[in-house]
Amino acid sequence: MKVLITGGAGFLGQRLARELLARGSLKDAQGMPQALTQLVLLDVVEAHDFGDSRVRTEVGDIAERSVLERVIDSDTAAIFHLAAIVSGQAEADFDLGMRINLDASRLLLDVCRHRGHRPRVVFTSSVAVYGGNLPEVVQNDTALNPQSSYGAQKAIAELLLNDYSRRGFVDGRVLRLPTISVRPGRPNAAASSFASGIIREPLNGEEAVCPVDGATRLWLLSPRQAIECLIAGLELDAAALGNQRVLNLPGISVSVDEMVAALREVAGDEVAKRIVWQPDERVTKIVGSWPGRWDTSRAEQLGLRGDRNFADVIRGYIADEGIQTP
Amino acid sequence: MKVLITGGAGFLGQRLARELLARGSLKDAQGMPQALTQLVLLDVVEAHDFGDSRVRTEVGDIAERSVLERVIDSDTAAIFHLAAIVSGQAEADFDLGMRINLDASRLLLDVCRHRGHRPRVVFTSSVAVYGGNLPEVVQNDTALNPQSSYGAQKAIAELLLNDYSRRGFVDGRVLRLPTISVRPGRPNAAASSFASGIIREPLNGEEAVCPVDGATRLWLLSPRQAIECLIAGLELDAAALGNQRVLNLPGISVSVDEMVAALREVAGDEVAKRIVWQPDERVTKIVGSWPGRWDTSRAEQLGLRGDRNFADVIRGYIADEGIQTP
Repeated sequence: MKVLITGGAGFLGQRLARELLARGSLKDAQGMPQALTQLVLLDVVEAHDFGDSRVRTEVGDIAERSVLERVIDSDTAAIFHLAAIVSGQAEADFDLGMRINLDASRLLLDVCRHRGHRPRVVFTSSVAVYGGNLPEVVQNDTALNPQSSYGAQKAIAELLLNDYSRRGFVDGRVLRLPTISVRPGRPNAAASSFASGIIREPLNGEEAVCPVDGATRLWLLSPRQAIECLIAGLELDAAALGNQRVLNLPGISVSVDEMVAALREVAGDEVAKRIVWQPDERVTKIVGSWPGRWDTSRAEQLGLRGDRNFADVIRGYIADEGIQTP
Repeated sequence: MKVLITGGAGFLGQRLARELLARGSLKDAQGMPQALTQLVLLDVVEAHDFGDSRVRTEVGDIAERSVLERVIDSDTAAIFHLAAIVSGQAEADFDLGMRINLDASRLLLDVCRHRGHRPRVVFTSSVAVYGGNLPEVVQNDTALNPQSSYGAQKAIAELLLNDYSRRGFVDGRVLRLPTISVRPGRPNAAASSFASGIIREPLNGEEAVCPVDGATRLWLLSPRQAIECLIAGLELDAAALGNQRVLNLPGISVSVDEMVAALREVAGDEVAKRIVWQPDERVTKIVGSWPGRWDTSRAEQLGLRGDRNFADVIRGYIADEGIQTP
């Protein structure tokens, strides 16, 4: 089976690639395991190829049709579309966000449509599609009301994927991801960057700025479970999804204060004290518009699983990254 | 004040133009009446100009940037964007629907953005943005779940207009129209075309095919009240709309059987007998996915009004079109 990951050099893309290579197979549309024969990693920079002969890296601009035509052919059975401009950057550079989050997503669907073989396509979406006056627990039938350009672009991509699926051009699935924490590496331009930074930097012996109030409630998913859900989402039986291809993935609802308490529990008070509280109105406004919890019953009925609690998420991060704690 | 109507040669566009010319003024963004100095009617065919020197007709493809740049300048204070590919045609010709209902709407917003003067823009949307398992009365916070490409394209245009408004590129309003009935003229490719045809054709002494079951519930608005709502929607105070620019317009909820009973009441049994029942699966599926009623409290609080009952709608049609009844 030939698989494509867009954003294949990114953190989630690389982690997903590593997991797919380790598993060595994926279920096909009939639920039968098929050996992974080629894994194409497309990104604007060269992706790590894991020294694995099944990996083919491609560098290119995903908003160019010729690039997508190079990486999607009629043998491409599964596509994980992870390439995106993050929330803070899409708010700062409107045209760039529209180009990558909307135009490239549509182009990808359209190239699949013209190939004519109805590949399975997983899009990732976000808490940012919600906003405004939200119920305490967002339901599957709660209206989208994005309060950021990133959220609007993701909501549009959802509608496109649903319609392309309904028409039989692709067999699509949208997984709405909670905020991913803890991400390794450096801070990025996502408004939610701090949700990893306030754990990661203190564990590295560095100070981290928290731009929101401690009472702010976040809806989180670990990278480990995100990867599990991406693969399970691709393997879901299309018949079980019907005409509603969007799934709210399971998360855990924690306040920033509870995140800090979990860090203290796992790594001690010295580490937790490295957080500097410095409110930022722009970040507070964007993050504050997101839901702190949503109903996950549909995803759970379909077998998708989140994390147990945030202390375990931190422990998983420490184990995965080989971090020494005091 | 300079005003643009796209789809200006269409039925609603022409009726709106006539009403605006008769009124002679529109409220500006500060709520002050301003004389209508120029009314630009853009369409793919030459619009009727009413022999009025304030009218400027323009023929062009609305999906071409140069056409929009010709009709939108920094003096354009108000835009009614009515041009669209109707539901049945957008389902039959996917690319055409995407080009007009999505690309042209986005291009229009983008040309406004680059003009930089934040004009007021009214988009029309539709019952077709809803679908799937709907509550008996659709609420303002009911999730969109379009089951047609037309509905998906309208839902996307709503998201775009909301985001362009939030960012201050335009001062936008989306009016979700119930199905418009009774439209004069000939049947069109809208799945809802019969909702006018089963009244109009019998009144003209012709047979009309009804492709859905008599129990099918429709959510209707007369052309008269649609025009009232379009103008009132443009004149609404932006502050009263806040960050949610979409309004579900008032309608009346009637079954097809009740429509026929109203026709019998107004025009007699001979006329009502001219309806031929001939179920069409394609039409039934699309129309059946639409809501039969939605909550209209927000629109009503803002002063927008629908019709009293369907018999009055028929009487209004007869009066407007000068039709002789037995």
